Amino acid sequence: MSETPHVRVAIVGVSGYTGAELLRLLHDHPYAEVTKLCAHSTAGRSVAEVLPSFRGLIDGTIDAFDASAVAEVADVAFTALPHGASAGAVRALRDKGVIVFDLSADFRLKDLDTYTEWYGDHQAPGLFGAGVYGLVELSRDKLRAADLVAVPGCYPTATVAALAPLLNEGLVDPNSLIVDAKSGVSGAGRKASLHTHLPEAAGGIRAYKAGGMHRHTPEIVQALSSFAREPLRLTFTPHLVPMTRGILVTAYADLASSEVDAQRCHAAAEAFYEGSPSIHVLPAGTHPDTLWVKGSNRLHLAYAVDARARRVVAQASIDNLLKGAAGQAVQAFNVRFGYPEGTSLMSPGAWP
Amino acid sequence: MSETPHVRVAIVGVSGYTGAELLRLLHDHPYAEVTKLCAHSTAGRSVAEVLPSFRGLIDGTIDAFDASAVAEVADVAFTALPHGASAGAVRALRDKGVIVFDLSADFRLKDLDTYTEWYGDHQAPGLFGAGVYGLVELSRDKLRAADLVAVPGCYPTATVAALAPLLNEGLVDPNSLIVDAKSGVSGAGRKASLHTHLPEAAGGIRAYKAGGMHRHTPEIVQALSSFAREPLRLTFTPHLVPMTRGILVTAYADLASSEVDAQRCHAAAEAFYEGSPSIHVLPAGTHPDTLWVKGSNRLHLAYAVDARARRVVAQASIDNLLKGAAGQAVQAFNVRFGYPEGTSLMSPGAWP
Amino acid sequence: MSETPHVRVAIVGVSGYTGAELLRLLHDHPYAEVTKLCAHSTAGRSVAEVLPSFRGLIDGTIDAFDASAVAEVADVAFTALPHGASAGAVRALRDKGVIVFDLSADFRLKDLDTYTEWYGDHQAPGLFGAGVYGLVELSRDKLRAADLVAVPGCYPTATVAALAPLLNEGLVDPNSLIVDAKSGVSGAGRKASLHTHLPEAAGGIRAYKAGGMHRHTPEIVQALSSFAREPLRLTFTPHLVPMTRGILVTAYADLASSEVDAQRCHAAAEAFYEGSPSIHVLPAGTHPDTLWVKGSNRLHLAYAVDARARRVVAQASIDNLLKGAAGQAVQAFNVRFGYPEGTSLMSPGAWP
Amino acid sequence: MSETPHVRVAIVGVSGYTGAELLRLLHDHPYAEVTKLCAHSTAGRSVAEVLPSFRGLIDGTIDAFDASAVAEVADVAFTALPHGASAGAVRALRDKGVIVFDLSADFRLKDLDTYTEWYGDHQAPGLFGAGVYGLVELSRDKLRAADLVAVPGCYPTATVAALAPLLNEGLVDPNSLIVDAKSGVSGAGRKASLHTHLPEAAGGIRAYKAGGMHRHTPEIVQALSSFAREPLRLTFTPHLVPMTRGILVTAYADLASSEVDAQRCHAAAEAFYEGSPSIHVLPAGTHPDTLWVKGSNRLHLAYAVDARARRVVAQASIDNLLKGAAGQAVQAFNVRFGYPEGTSLMSPGAWP
Repeated sequence: MSETPHVRVAIVGVSGYTGAELLRLLHDHPYAEVTKLCAHSTAGRSVAEVLPSFRGLIDGTIDAFDASAVAEVADVAFTALPHGASAGAVRALRDKGVIVFDLSADFRLKDLDTYTEWYGDHQAPGLFGAGVYGLVELSRDKLRAADLVAVPGCYPTATVAALAPLLNEGLVDPNSLIVDAKSGVSGAGRKASLHTHLPEAAGGIRAYKAGGMHRHTPEIVQALSSFAREPLRLTFTPHLVPMTRGILVTAYADLASSEVDAQRCHAAAEAFYEGSPSIHVLPAGTHPDTLWVKGSNRLHLAYAVDARARRVVAQASIDNLLKGAAGQAVQAFNVRFGYPEGTSLMSPGAWP
Repeated sequence: MSETPHVRVAIVGVSGYTGAELLRLLHDHPYAEVTKLCAHSTAGRSVAEVLPSFRGLIDGTIDAFDASAVAEVADVAFTALPHGASAGAVRALRDKGVIVFDLSADFRLKDLDTYTEWYGDHQAPGLFGAGVYGLVELSRDKLRAADLVAVPGCYPTATVAALAPLLNEGLVDPNSLIVDAKSGVSGAGRKASLHTHLPEAAGGIRAYKAGGMHRHTPEIVQALSSFAREPLRLTFTPHLVPMTRGILVTAYADLASSEVDAQRCHAAAEAFYEGSPSIHVLPAGTHPDTLWVKGSNRLHLAYAVDARARRVVAQASIDNLLKGAAGQAVQAFNVRFGYPEGTSLMSPGAWP
Repeated sequence: MSETPHVRVAIVGVSGYTGAELLRLLHDHPYAEVTKLCAHSTAGRSVAEVLPSFRGLIDGTIDAFDASAVAEVADVAFTALPHGASAGAVRALRDKGVIVFDLSADFRLKDLDTYTEWYGDHQAPGLFGAGVYGLVELSRDKLRAADLVAVPGCYPTATVAALAPLLNEGLVDPNSLIVDAKSGVSGAGRKASLHTHLPEAAGGIRAYKAGGMHRHTPEIVQALSSFAREPLRLTFTPHLVPMTRGILVTAYADLASSEVDAQRCHAAAEAFYEGSPSIHVLPAGTHPDTLWVKGSNRLHLAYAVDARARRVVAQASIDNLLKGAAGQAVQAFNVRFGYPEGTSLMSPGAWP
Repeated sequence: MSETPHVRVAIVGVSGYTGAELLRLLHDHPYAEVTKLCAHSTAGRSVAEVLPSFRGLIDGTIDAFDASAVAEVADVAFTALPHGASAGAVRALRDKGVIVFDLSADFRLKDLDTYTEWYGDHQAPGLFGAGVYGLVELSRDKLRAADLVAVPGCYPTATVAALAPLLNEGLVDPNSLIVDAKSGVSGAGRKASLHTHLPEAAGGIRAYKAGGMHRHTPEIVQALSSFAREPLRLTFTPHLVPMTRGILVTAYADLASSEVDAQRCHAAAEAFYEGSPSIHVLPAGTHPDTLWVKGSNRLHLAYAVDARARRVVAQASIDNLLKGAAGQAVQAFNVRFGYPEGTSLMSPGAWP
């Protein structure tokens, strides 16, 4: 074990929820050494004050971001910054030779016009397209040589994981995809608003950006399109659920033929994810519960078939901050550096 | 006002959540006099002990159910009993001439074979088919002469309200219906189980009976079929959400033509529910939140169109215990007896 | 009934949680007519947009506050404004002859130095001391002639209600008072912050302003002192609980003698609150649950005695927005104008 | 590291919440090997089915308890069984030479009459008194030779940790102790009841066993008495809070002299817990939040002084399932076997 080279890592944007999870996973990681913590609004404050769960464990202070200072002490940076703002930081880090795992949307899309349409002008167009999309189970080979990893969005991770095996085997009609997603409130980040104010968020559920207006739509379509032989017709609707963590995706598709049943879908997923330590296909009749994956990097899948209506109901659950963000980033890091894919990621969450 | 005849009412099954809401609404009702409260497991106990929110307001005791005793003091009974058990009680009450508003599923379906397939043997087959389906906005005329009202299920109420206007005007393809529903835990009734145990229910979301296995499916199909010119193909998936009250239905359908937009759907619903005091169609871009209807008999609707995928996303929110159960029953009662439809039902809930 | 004169009322600060509850109660009130709604940040917007639970019920728009405009259409104003800001508005209204029920802290204290110490400079010192403290059960006589009512704080209401009967009969030692209070998050108002951001508020409980630093401390001491023959020694600690509504006060006091038992405390409270429609003393062994009073103006009390330690444990639960704010204001309004004290206030909340 | 001897451990009662946490901690423990999992009602079922968070991680099946079978494969057993039932299992295991960490109350008290008064007849009276009370920070020396460890209750852990340093230095009056404790619902175990049914538990807070009736009272008194020079007068009131995990203790005591301030209390605790990796004394003005310790074995302490009332307000927060149960058991195990005290216990929880 002592022969494995350690990698020095920085976390940029550590004071948000994703940053905190990156810190937790990387602090425990046997081959990573956390050497730098950066954030904007909390710069100068101690980790214990900003992230009280680390009190007594991490004594340091959070620094303002400076690419040169990061490059001096770190080989790798995990950037957990807002969309738009991230691109500039990533470019600065790449210019200094730092390998970057970027958790924003800035390097996920392949088409610049699509990016501009959904996110506005890109802040580092010269680097656009340079990122390897880091949905690990779909891109292990590419990740091994990646110097810029675009860590997928939380909704795309769960959605693509659920539907890719079905499209890949031609079990469903690409023209018929409906994705109804439910997310805990931590997905909105560590930014207070009335939408997330406990009295207005704890007692109800609601959709948002209904009508295909959510920015993860093009990312989902892009990732799934490579598995379909024809253009997708996909509607994606996210919902805000009164809980802190978790995403449940319930995806619907018409069966490609009357021979397809739940067992066939299950088998397709089992085969697709064979050897993937983070994905589990649950037994028939089981419904993934986000509680079961909370605090872990796991993704639970299950398939039910509505025989009357000849549709499949694909269900996927993740912790949005882990397999949907920080966990997936560390998983990609493990693949990139040749560590066992589940390093620092195999613990179940604290249940319940 | 003093000329309006009062009606004497009994509540059978008062100790559950729906029973408690019936009691609240009918106690405040200016033309109803609550004369009898019955329940099985809590018979002999005081209302204040079983339903602590009524302490100081209602001094009586809960009786065991006896149809003759009910008929002696009541003209009308609201039965909030489990499916299967309700039919026998309803028959006994009807035999004594009591007008019944039944909140179980026992008299909702029109086809006995379908009932048997989903619920098992019917306990009062002679009365099967005698109920008027009480989704008030769809059946006001029939309700005026009804002596047995089958109060709709919570999921069907929200689903049918959302989709009926679209099917009625031929705006959507009946072959393409997906209903993704989310319910608070009170929908499971006042019966403890691990599924509803706070530690296992408060921190996650999950589907149940995925694959078209939920008993409300045939009820939804039956109610919507009358608005469609061809057989429906509909998939219904309920989910359990970590909150006490509320149902949000997110329903998806392919647009019948490229001319249909959100405004057209909105207008269809506005027209369909004109003069209905309990249903509000929200402005474009608004997403119904179950919090906004909690504690009230209101139903909020909104329509978004996914122009890329040519689908409508219909959203409906209700309080499952009110417009989804007790409120709708009282609304039907008002129509039956010629009172203003919103009597005792117009207050907004206590928000937030 | 038609002989009872109606009173025209305005609500100033309607867009917060207390304002919304005032609107709900007064809209339903048979002798009040709501003629004006004011707020600062939401001026110009429709009620339905700002308070979605009123959609379809109240069509108006919210106005900016102007005392003259209020005085033109209203006899009475309920002011639900922040401490400090309220005094000026109240003075302007009083100058125009409007009777005011003020829900801020600006007129609750009797000693100006104490006010200044805890709240800073008073904005209407000429009016300081003119308010009648509106804890209804303690001040009915004074309220009948009041033109400025200082509606009590939420914590003082529950605390004083629990302890006053015991101090009044000399059952406990005034030197030994500990008040441990637990509040839902709506007590923090409709103002987003990280403290109330669902991810950081829903999964934990914590004290705040421990060490006697909360501003309700002098109000509690002032109100209870009139029942004690010696100065109080009282420690008050509030906690933030992961729920929207409700306050539970658990108060501790040494028994004045070994003869005092739970039954004696219970009897003292029963006698003290005889004829009070909003207060219920629960049977021995029952523990008040804030759920049971949620959405209602009720206050539940219970007393347990720790015989080993010779202490009483007094428990009181209220809905902080109702008996702790809007409900109590309307209750005081009823007393002021000679309406039955429980008018518009007797409904139980929607439970659960 | 490879020289450290591994210990083979069994978990008896693995299907409850404490059992699940024991499994999580011991599965990750570098010096423990989990060789046997037992439970009563779930015997014969797979771990993945009973504890879905372990799916894909632990493939085994749960066995019925048999002391001989445990002794064959395990050197150590952690017993997480109900009070009363545990004693018999512990005796059987000790008879076979198995070292036992018992998480029930059966071996915590030192006085058999007290045990009988609060819990009924003891099922292994010959072994009563043989347990070492395992509040690790108070009993490291004794634990090193212990073959039967009585892991403390959750409330006593937080309470004793908060008050012991103050009593130990004579800073507070032992005659004046009030302990107001708040617990998440997982403290009630994995057993469904109406008290823990989400609709009745999620929307309110309430005390239970008020008046000194909770069984943890004698345990707290026993543990604290060794630090006081006179008998304690202590009142303990637990509350059920609408959240899954966490205990917050707010304890009150009269200051022994007017010289004692918050800094003095803070310093006493700092000194008392020096070198204790699980306990952190927070800076002045900070309020421990159970969210900050959720999922970890940490205990946060803080002291505020109410100068007006001359009292200290001591606050302690823990995760009831970790430092309050499974974590403390593993901590005691580490001390017993000479491993670093924080082995497998230092990770912060997944926050938020």
